[in-house]
Amino acid sequence: MDPSTVKIPPMKDLTHENITPNVHIINSQCPDARLRYLLTSLVSHLHDFARETRLTTDEWMAAIQFLTAVGQKCDDIRQEFILLSDTLGLSVLVDGMSHPKPPGATEGTVLGPFHTHDADRFEIGESICSPGKGEPMLVLCTVKDTAGNALENVTVDVWETDDSGRYDTQYPGRTSPDCRGVLTSGKDGFWFKCVKPVPYPIPSDGPVGKMLEKLHRHCYRPAHLHFKCKKDGYDELITALYIRGDPYETSDAVFGVKSSLITDIDSIADPAMADKYGMKVGDHLLKWDFVLITEQESKNLKDRLAREALAKLGSTARLEDGLPVADN
Amino acid sequence: MDPSTVKIPPMKDLTHENITPNVHIINSQCPDARLRYLLTSLVSHLHDFARETRLTTDEWMAAIQFLTAVGQKCDDIRQEFILLSDTLGLSVLVDGMSHPKPPGATEGTVLGPFHTHDADRFEIGESICSPGKGEPMLVLCTVKDTAGNALENVTVDVWETDDSGRYDTQYPGRTSPDCRGVLTSGKDGFWFKCVKPVPYPIPSDGPVGKMLEKLHRHCYRPAHLHFKCKKDGYDELITALYIRGDPYETSDAVFGVKSSLITDIDSIADPAMADKYGMKVGDHLLKWDFVLITEQESKNLKDRLAREALAKLGSTARLEDGLPVADN
Repeated sequence: MDPSTVKIPPMKDLTHENITPNVHIINSQCPDARLRYLLTSLVSHLHDFARETRLTTDEWMAAIQFLTAVGQKCDDIRQEFILLSDTLGLSVLVDGMSHPKPPGATEGTVLGPFHTHDADRFEIGESICSPGKGEPMLVLCTVKDTAGNALENVTVDVWETDDSGRYDTQYPGRTSPDCRGVLTSGKDGFWFKCVKPVPYPIPSDGPVGKMLEKLHRHCYRPAHLHFKCKKDGYDELITALYIRGDPYETSDAVFGVKSSLITDIDSIADPAMADKYGMKVGDHLLKWDFVLITEQESKNLKDRLAREALAKLGSTARLEDGLPVADN
Repeated sequence: MDPSTVKIPPMKDLTHENITPNVHIINSQCPDARLRYLLTSLVSHLHDFARETRLTTDEWMAAIQFLTAVGQKCDDIRQEFILLSDTLGLSVLVDGMSHPKPPGATEGTVLGPFHTHDADRFEIGESICSPGKGEPMLVLCTVKDTAGNALENVTVDVWETDDSGRYDTQYPGRTSPDCRGVLTSGKDGFWFKCVKPVPYPIPSDGPVGKMLEKLHRHCYRPAHLHFKCKKDGYDELITALYIRGDPYETSDAVFGVKSSLITDIDSIADPAMADKYGMKVGDHLLKWDFVLITEQESKNLKDRLAREALAKLGSTARLEDGLPVADN
């Protein structure tokens, strides 16, 4: 690089007191207003964290080594940085801001690492699990808009653990999908057969597992059933239903549980009902009414919440394409 | 894990609004007060960063992928996370807090990735560079305490680039150290021969290099000479001297330059002086007076600055072994 092309505004007499504004000065040449805004906020918080804690060089080095180990644990099927984000509550926060829901609509929650794109399509009423995968459960659902109109042709992706707490992808030598499936809603919603999900541990043999251990946290998620509901014109709903009374209901390792998503499981008592759905009396029964919002409802809500949040923070940022950038 | 052993205090009805206190609740079982304090501050700042920027899922995923790439770029001789910390100004901040200096003492700066432990020992007056490494430079130094007393037997580690801007470790097939050496101060300080250092780029072929490009920053460091001064009872001084007038003097890619560490280089004008030191008239001359502080001076200063900084931040933390922990 030709030094004469250095156009960076000069730092002001650098000390560790004024390092933060000096980093902002050097980053100020970034032509992308949003990236500039992200970096300014990131650097300010990073430095404030170090100042507030008087972070020592030994602690800094331990953090460098931890982050390096997290990166090096990642491969094609393992994403340890997402796990870190999950266990620090960042994932559910980002998801909540990106997909806010008005009262009455079904809340979203974290996607998690076990969704695949190869699930089979099923007809209404079929079982998404092969035989012997756990205690049989019937799931009866409706899908509506916020005005209460039934939504047909919603593509519903469902996935869950078997009764050993494992997703199909966690079995070595997996050749085909199991305990997952894609259905399409009709005017009465959709229903399918599956198994009762159970609690399971997140992968704990890496640096994030070590961190949880140091923090005296467990690595379990309460039992749940994942859903992804998609229809043109509607905000995609990524969510999960949690079984009430799970021992990890109030301490989910990745903070995915929300009160509005906790549901009771009944058992089928009526022989006629069992007969109608091809189940047995005593089998588990889960009923749920999904409510989707339109893309326009989502956009309006996101804009309003962004404005309210920035006002509450006393931020002078302005919104550009719905996202804050510095007001300069 | 036996669910009955879950002793974690329950989260309060999780929403993305209250995720931060909920993460604190789950982390509150950590028995190490300092780690608990670090995590509380880290999670608060991480969440505030996401809230302030309304971080989107796409941006979050880009950050996950960036951090993964940073981790995977690291190996035995490359530490991309330290480079990231350096380029965000964190390293110099942490170093400044860990090794504060009173007025009159020589300031410290970042160690950088090029220090080695295999440098040869040299007698006063020898050259630490093999022939042909650059423009000859004589370095004349004193080392004193804050009261002005000469300090003998200080171990002084020196390292620098050659005139191509490379450290010896950056040459493939390096068999022995060059442009680095260890000296011991006498009652008149120490002096040695070397070459005039030149500006050089930090490694820019990884994710951090890509980041700097996106920010329209250059990857250069101004010319400097590294010093590490060590003596029992004294706070180890890790510092560098920067050559005044360097084109990157006010835009160091890693924020290591401090005004008090910028020095002029003269040339040797007096033939008698050239003769005395075995140099030529016209060769470069660098003179510097190092002032070290004792471990006790360092500890007292660090404690005082920590107290002042916490008071300024309005923090209610108390100091334990000189470091803040939560007051509970």
